[in-house]
Amino acid sequence: MSRPTPSRRPLSGEGPVILHAATDPRWLPLALERFDEVLVDHAHCEKKAAANALSMLQAYPDLPGLPSQMARLAREESAHLARVLDLMAARGLTLTKDAGDPYAQGLQKLIRTPAAERRMDRLLVAAVIEARSCERLSLLAEGLTDPALARFYGELAQSEDGHQSLFYRLAVTASEGDETSVKARLEWMLEREAQVITDVGLRAAIH
Amino acid sequence: MSRPTPSRRPLSGEGPVILHAATDPRWLPLALERFDEVLVDHAHCEKKAAANALSMLQAYPDLPGLPSQMARLAREESAHLARVLDLMAARGLTLTKDAGDPYAQGLQKLIRTPAAERRMDRLLVAAVIEARSCERLSLLAEGLTDPALARFYGELAQSEDGHQSLFYRLAVTASEGDETSVKARLEWMLEREAQVITDVGLRAAIH
Repeated sequence: MSRPTPSRRPLSGEGPVILHAATDPRWLPLALERFDEVLVDHAHCEKKAAANALSMLQAYPDLPGLPSQMARLAREESAHLARVLDLMAARGLTLTKDAGDPYAQGLQKLIRTPAAERRMDRLLVAAVIEARSCERLSLLAEGLTDPALARFYGELAQSEDGHQSLFYRLAVTASEGDETSVKARLEWMLEREAQVITDVGLRAAIH
Repeated sequence: MSRPTPSRRPLSGEGPVILHAATDPRWLPLALERFDEVLVDHAHCEKKAAANALSMLQAYPDLPGLPSQMARLAREESAHLARVLDLMAARGLTLTKDAGDPYAQGLQKLIRTPAAERRMDRLLVAAVIEARSCERLSLLAEGLTDPALARFYGELAQSEDGHQSLFYRLAVTASEGDETSVKARLEWMLEREAQVITDVGLRAAIH
């Protein structure tokens, strides 16, 4: 059995979010073979990332820095969405109804209820999803043979890498600089994330 | 008593959305006097416009042209939001909790329940809100004495004018080109809008 190779950016130690488990090596061949399906799922992911940024801004307007950073994030994710929809149109694909993302749903179950814990957890779940997306988009960037597509996915992976760091920093701000507790909670969450990504199984989807 | 002057772009006949009632002449002096409050409300309006674009995309991915146009709209409204937040920061203002928008809530009550009617009405309510926003932002552009601010509001008004037309065209697409029924429903809605904007009363807010 091949060992997971921890070569992707968010696994490599540059963090702050360092995933515990590399993607199953069977995912990339599947994703490349059924790339049209992955592309449609990717559009839904970008839509949800933009909507989540606006939802964070709606929920936490008083966290210093959060509103302007979430506005810029929503703009960026909406721009990604527009580009993915263009790629889809060029391939004759149309957007389907969103079937939901069992991976994101699995992580959302980890969010605690009390307001302060909820805010911290929402920020960390977002950081973790961005880190996993970064890893998956990096894999696509390396695996896609079309140079323009590969470059596009490389750029997106770079963006997602910036976002995992953004959400982590906001979580530290939310805990008034108590980074130790943020790190502990993040590590706890990453242990579960490794299980969630395994439980979801192989899908022709970003997660 | 001064008559409302129907001089603003969406009142002027260039349409397609032609408001039935001009803004009360007392609104602009109030908005200029309490411009800081208006600015915070404006940020919330841009946030809701971006979120609504993503929500339309989520609800109606199969309406031809809608997904890519809504993705671009979400990007544009998020960019406006980021600029408004920058203006607020320069004045030492921070975003407060969203107190809700009685004007938009009044219009949302006009949306019918069955799926086809609901889609049409959601598109037309969005068109009407954009038209009213265009009128109000034009008034601010004319009333603000700071040239940079006045220019910014003039640009925003121009954008909103494009959006009322975008939502109207999507409503025509949604009715499979039966523009007569769209126009009839829009006129019905505009009669109510004139009442809603009056009922809401004078507020240091965009609507």
